[in-house]
Amino acid sequence: MAQEAAFTSSAMATALENSSVSYEELADIEKEFDDAETEIIRQQVALTAPLYVKRAELLSKIENFWPLVLEQAPPDIDQFIQPSDSALLLSSLTSLSVDNFEITSADKNGDPRSVAIKFEFAENEYFENKVLEKKFWYRTAADGWSGLVSEPVKINWKKDKDLTGGLLDLVIKAWEVEQSGKGASSKKGEPNDAQKALMKKIEGTGMGGLSFFSWFGFIGRRVTEEVSKEAIKREAARRKGEKVAEDEPMTEEQEDQEDLEMSLEIFPDGDDLAIAIAEDLWPGAIKYFTQAQEQDALSDLDFESGDEDDEAGSFQGLSDDDEAPPLKKMRS
Amino acid sequence: MAQEAAFTSSAMATALENSSVSYEELADIEKEFDDAETEIIRQQVALTAPLYVKRAELLSKIENFWPLVLEQAPPDIDQFIQPSDSALLLSSLTSLSVDNFEITSADKNGDPRSVAIKFEFAENEYFENKVLEKKFWYRTAADGWSGLVSEPVKINWKKDKDLTGGLLDLVIKAWEVEQSGKGASSKKGEPNDAQKALMKKIEGTGMGGLSFFSWFGFIGRRVTEEVSKEAIKREAARRKGEKVAEDEPMTEEQEDQEDLEMSLEIFPDGDDLAIAIAEDLWPGAIKYFTQAQEQDALSDLDFESGDEDDEAGSFQGLSDDDEAPPLKKMRS
Repeated sequence: MAQEAAFTSSAMATALENSSVSYEELADIEKEFDDAETEIIRQQVALTAPLYVKRAELLSKIENFWPLVLEQAPPDIDQFIQPSDSALLLSSLTSLSVDNFEITSADKNGDPRSVAIKFEFAENEYFENKVLEKKFWYRTAADGWSGLVSEPVKINWKKDKDLTGGLLDLVIKAWEVEQSGKGASSKKGEPNDAQKALMKKIEGTGMGGLSFFSWFGFIGRRVTEEVSKEAIKREAARRKGEKVAEDEPMTEEQEDQEDLEMSLEIFPDGDDLAIAIAEDLWPGAIKYFTQAQEQDALSDLDFESGDEDDEAGSFQGLSDDDEAPPLKKMRS
Repeated sequence: MAQEAAFTSSAMATALENSSVSYEELADIEKEFDDAETEIIRQQVALTAPLYVKRAELLSKIENFWPLVLEQAPPDIDQFIQPSDSALLLSSLTSLSVDNFEITSADKNGDPRSVAIKFEFAENEYFENKVLEKKFWYRTAADGWSGLVSEPVKINWKKDKDLTGGLLDLVIKAWEVEQSGKGASSKKGEPNDAQKALMKKIEGTGMGGLSFFSWFGFIGRRVTEEVSKEAIKREAARRKGEKVAEDEPMTEEQEDQEDLEMSLEIFPDGDDLAIAIAEDLWPGAIKYFTQAQEQDALSDLDFESGDEDDEAGSFQGLSDDDEAPPLKKMRS
């Protein structure tokens, strides 16, 4: 109820105003919790690394494990997978893996929230690539925003098999122009030729049933590693009470530029999908794999014809001496 | 689509059967991840303990902080709070806290997933208690189930002010009989007098709009500390490959007893609510508190009459030199 929410929120504003606590103090303690959480992720990655290696070895022996897991994925992943994507994945996906690459590589001081998501494929009729890997860097912007940013990944589609209908290629093209530094059009904030082509394509495409593979085109905000490091340093100094230069607000040109980039984003929730894969699907893969079987066995009960050999809730094919406890609901 | 799910799940069963991997191997690696997760929780509690102390000091200065946070709670908490509960909470709740008591107490080897949730109240017209604290112990049962169990908490309602309409008192009564060991009725599995009274009350009560305070009556499965320790030891031995005695299946009497207890549970999702409070509301309290203000400020934009002094997205009362960055979306 909007009215109730409005009441509560103005009550909150009042409560804060009437207290001796500033919004900044609240934001600061939240930042401390955030830092602690980041440290915990670092420890978690270290602790679970050998387990993931062990698990990968096990799962590599189960045919179609990852395609079947994707079929069972929760809505925030499943909603993006079209029937034609399913066909490709089920027939050709051989492996999926997530790597917190900024801390597993040589530079152990990187951000543990950055993830590389890798899909491995067998020979297939859609594209040449054996591996499609997309990296997401956790960055902090000058205005205080923080989150995942990425780069588009080129897929070498076979003839007439481009599931994105050419959209991904136009994103790659516009990105290459942007990276070359020669992307300026005659008027700043106005689209250059590559961007115009992409814009035209987007306008002509029903973005509703877009292929999952357009996710490889997600870019997000443009925040370089240097800008990020500077923003983090400044924030830390401010919290220590040191004097820091005021953030320069974005110029109108810069804002227009950012608006343009955001309008050309072909997969706006690409960062959310990355988080869903890295933090839900990847750790919970076995749970999703077996959950389907548990549900199926339970629904079989409704149709039981009184066959006493059926053990309710256990898996088909399980021998008597392999009685395993039901998988616990994992605290996530 | 049920058909699609059924196809996938039988495909999964087939995939597993055709592999050299057993369901037990999958369950074992899941258990190893579970153990790692428990260790991480232990580290997280240690790391964040001083931050929660610091935060509590800050929040104690903001009047009505916790009642306002509860008003903003996500659906899985909010759905249980009735209007009459709201009135009580808003006028009298002074503090809410969560304590992983099994590891913060002297015995540091306890389970970090056990939580004590404490509500503190000012003098109010509903009940005498200044503090209502409910403990949840993380236990493992002989059949492999694991999760939170609790005990009912007595509320000293003032005359004609019992928001649970007498239900909670009957739960307490039945529990006391159960704990005394004198709970056996003439026939095992049949309800004793206290249980009959509770059963009758439940039947006569519309359980739909039940007061949030009936949550204090949640009990869950009966799994003692001894049974839990034994089950955990046995599980560890089995995973090491040692020979362990077969689990004794429940007798029919024991099953009837458990069914009876489950039917007398006045708040079946009490463990889920505990988890929502301990793992979402408690860590995210400031986020929930300020989120309402952010949403309110944004919706104010729709009705802007061109007043240039309104800063979009910033909080009312915020002075110019207190420009704080927007609270980041915390990775949960």
